[in-house]
Amino acid sequence: MSFQKLDDLGRRLEALEHALAILGADEATHMAVGGGDKRAEAMSNLAGMYHAQATAPEIRDWIEAAKASELTPDQALAVAEFERSYVNATCLPTEFVERRTATTMRSEQLWRDLRAKGDWDSFLPALEGVVALAREEAQLRADALGLAPYDALMDQFDPGNRTADIDGVFADLKSFLKGFVPEALAVQEERRAKTPRKDLNGPYPIEKQRELGLAAMRAVGFDFTHGSLAVSHHPFCGGVPTDVRMTTRYRTDQFLPSLMGVLHETGHALYEQGLPKEWSHWPLGKARGMGLHESQSLFVEMQLSRSPEFWEFMLPLVHQHLGEDAIPGWDIADILNEVNHVERGYIRVDADEVTYPLHVILRYELEQELIAGTLEASQIPEAWDAKMTEYLGISTINNPKDGPMQDVHWPAGSFGYFPSYTLGAMIAAQQWAAMERALPNATDMVRQGDFSAINQWRADNIWREASRLSTPDLITKATGEPLNADHFKAHLKRRYGRI
Amino acid sequence: MSFQKLDDLGRRLEALEHALAILGADEATHMAVGGGDKRAEAMSNLAGMYHAQATAPEIRDWIEAAKASELTPDQALAVAEFERSYVNATCLPTEFVERRTATTMRSEQLWRDLRAKGDWDSFLPALEGVVALAREEAQLRADALGLAPYDALMDQFDPGNRTADIDGVFADLKSFLKGFVPEALAVQEERRAKTPRKDLNGPYPIEKQRELGLAAMRAVGFDFTHGSLAVSHHPFCGGVPTDVRMTTRYRTDQFLPSLMGVLHETGHALYEQGLPKEWSHWPLGKARGMGLHESQSLFVEMQLSRSPEFWEFMLPLVHQHLGEDAIPGWDIADILNEVNHVERGYIRVDADEVTYPLHVILRYELEQELIAGTLEASQIPEAWDAKMTEYLGISTINNPKDGPMQDVHWPAGSFGYFPSYTLGAMIAAQQWAAMERALPNATDMVRQGDFSAINQWRADNIWREASRLSTPDLITKATGEPLNADHFKAHLKRRYGRI
Repeated sequence: MSFQKLDDLGRRLEALEHALAILGADEATHMAVGGGDKRAEAMSNLAGMYHAQATAPEIRDWIEAAKASELTPDQALAVAEFERSYVNATCLPTEFVERRTATTMRSEQLWRDLRAKGDWDSFLPALEGVVALAREEAQLRADALGLAPYDALMDQFDPGNRTADIDGVFADLKSFLKGFVPEALAVQEERRAKTPRKDLNGPYPIEKQRELGLAAMRAVGFDFTHGSLAVSHHPFCGGVPTDVRMTTRYRTDQFLPSLMGVLHETGHALYEQGLPKEWSHWPLGKARGMGLHESQSLFVEMQLSRSPEFWEFMLPLVHQHLGEDAIPGWDIADILNEVNHVERGYIRVDADEVTYPLHVILRYELEQELIAGTLEASQIPEAWDAKMTEYLGISTINNPKDGPMQDVHWPAGSFGYFPSYTLGAMIAAQQWAAMERALPNATDMVRQGDFSAINQWRADNIWREASRLSTPDLITKATGEPLNADHFKAHLKRRYGRI
Repeated sequence: MSFQKLDDLGRRLEALEHALAILGADEATHMAVGGGDKRAEAMSNLAGMYHAQATAPEIRDWIEAAKASELTPDQALAVAEFERSYVNATCLPTEFVERRTATTMRSEQLWRDLRAKGDWDSFLPALEGVVALAREEAQLRADALGLAPYDALMDQFDPGNRTADIDGVFADLKSFLKGFVPEALAVQEERRAKTPRKDLNGPYPIEKQRELGLAAMRAVGFDFTHGSLAVSHHPFCGGVPTDVRMTTRYRTDQFLPSLMGVLHETGHALYEQGLPKEWSHWPLGKARGMGLHESQSLFVEMQLSRSPEFWEFMLPLVHQHLGEDAIPGWDIADILNEVNHVERGYIRVDADEVTYPLHVILRYELEQELIAGTLEASQIPEAWDAKMTEYLGISTINNPKDGPMQDVHWPAGSFGYFPSYTLGAMIAAQQWAAMERALPNATDMVRQGDFSAINQWRADNIWREASRLSTPDLITKATGEPLNADHFKAHLKRRYGRI
């Protein structure tokens, strides 16, 4: 009876989530330009209804009554996740939420303006306000969850993630990468000496690129009866599991950026499409967390799509859709030359898979200090520069635009999210290794463009688990070992290292 | 204070309407095929939230308190329309609504199956159930509104419409058409003898037809910053006033059906885009009713787009978009030959503007008898056949599929809606006449493809009025005279009659 109340609540919340997800995707793809104000007003109202319904005081009673009643094992898990959602949604006082919304909105708007100018000094007071709020929020969440403050922030994005576990893994990876980045760059230079980068032969018409992208999606297992591909300024994977809205963007002088982006988003889409449909209205039925989600996109993008085996079946598709002379004289090595290019750079979102983790670890380390109060916002530029210089050998001291002002996360008040990106990369590599033990000829399957057994393994071990386990427990169960950097390091060495 | 509560309610309801409108349009245009079940579940839940919020008992108190408070004239009108919506939404007991939903859903499903087979006998018991419900609903609405039962049904679709006013207008029109249809057919035969129908020269590629449709929409005033055109199986005009979602469908062997459909839907779109934006969250800010809405689409389709003047600027656009040899040898007379073809037929939705009203008047007459209890469902086939034979000279007695089984309205429990179609045609003609008195050179404007003054007149006199007046009062205010058939008859005589 009480469980039924939670079940009904789940269906109402799912309806509002459905509306918000589709309205959000529609806004970026098909909305008329003048429809934005009313769309924003409608979505804000719907989000308000969602919040009011998700945080109603009687839900606490339903949860307690349900916990005291006879439940199937799945129902018991469902109630636990209802409770987790409820605690996370209600642990911040309304007064605080309103203050946070006002502060972060102002800060984010200011950032959009000042970032372009690289004007750190004018931005600093706003960021100081956001950091103060983030510390307050971390403490509020910590009190409600019985966790350390920074752990309580991370727990929103990947339940179960703790600095006690991650610190060591990141330290290991960082120590490896500090030595490995120079090696990868040296190896790349030697390869380039033998195989110089070849010219593209565009323009590549958008309609043909679209067909190529659809063919790639189809090949890796995207279910077009439950999703579609459109165009938007910023690519995303949105919508709902029964109707995944993926987007990409095209430039006619190049086709690889769009294609690799499509493959990345397809990884997210496969996870959503593979979630257990019968639980879609329960928190238990949702994807586990951001690190896991990123691991699914990086599995497709990094483990599969940037491998030489993948291009054995993909290269003919490129010729089929873009024409025989689309990339004259290119072989698989030339494609890999292009898509696996390594470079020390300032910007995280432009980084390759070798240097990317160093961008993340830098932020993870600074975030922890910011939340702990051992670093102040005013000290960020120097701390950032010191770490960039140490990890990547480049200085940002006179370039805040491409340093601590480059990401929206902190201006928007989002702390504890950054680690998910690199956790995803490590989980993806660890997942491939576990899968290959179960499917010893997985590499041949990739070579043949046959992903059915690979996807079946992932569906059984990850997608259908949804939110039954914490992120660390799901990793351990799916891969047979706790999260560690070994498989990712081995992957980088195989792909970029001296053989 | 109480008005503010109604205003806030209006914003919440507008958000849910927005979601339902965009989700509905999206379902027909961009949704993945497998997304239907969850979409239906989400929309049903959102509709439930809408109903719960729109019928909350405290709204009655807010309305009474608002009426007793100081209000601006606009606020007073707004409260009156809030009350009208509230009474219409609450006058049926929940028990009845549930019974009606179950009955009409079963009946409509049965109809979809049995209509194709023309199996009237198997369908009759379901229809008898629906008719019984419709009588019950009419009485419930009549009691709540203080109206006669059939008037109470019509009042949902066009507030203020009464059989006492419409009966005479329809009788006049019917009497005219019984004589005029043979005349129009004879004139058509004579014209065809001189100007035989010419061949089309397709195929007409969809992308080119789309560009032609967009050019036509742009010409007659569609605002593409607040709307768009897509493809769906059944064309419609949906979405919200700030983001109107219009659709069409294409066949490559013909271009006129899609083009004329686009022009019809553009008429609906202009009305929505022309509503007062500041009132969009009040019932007062909505389009007045179905007859008025149809009058706006028929104004563009019938008054403007099927006129010889319209084709003076449109024919060059056809050549521009479809090619110089798209319709070889066609002149304006050939286009009119095609788009103004008259024919006695069985099917309402396929009828031309001369015969269409007779299809509607037949249904209007039978509906009134069905609701009054002077006609039983079992007697429909004979009554239908008698009227079809009298009005159009064709019998449906052995053809229920193309007779009383052709429309979804009755199987779905919708009575009182049919008259709107022909009211719309008459209002459109009356509107043109009034507008031409204000803009004596309106015909020249059409000839030049300049609709700005025409649209401005309509915006001032109809669109911006929204729901300030009842349908009959709006007609009288906008056109200077009560609804009558004279202008429509004159229009038909000019276009189809012996000169």
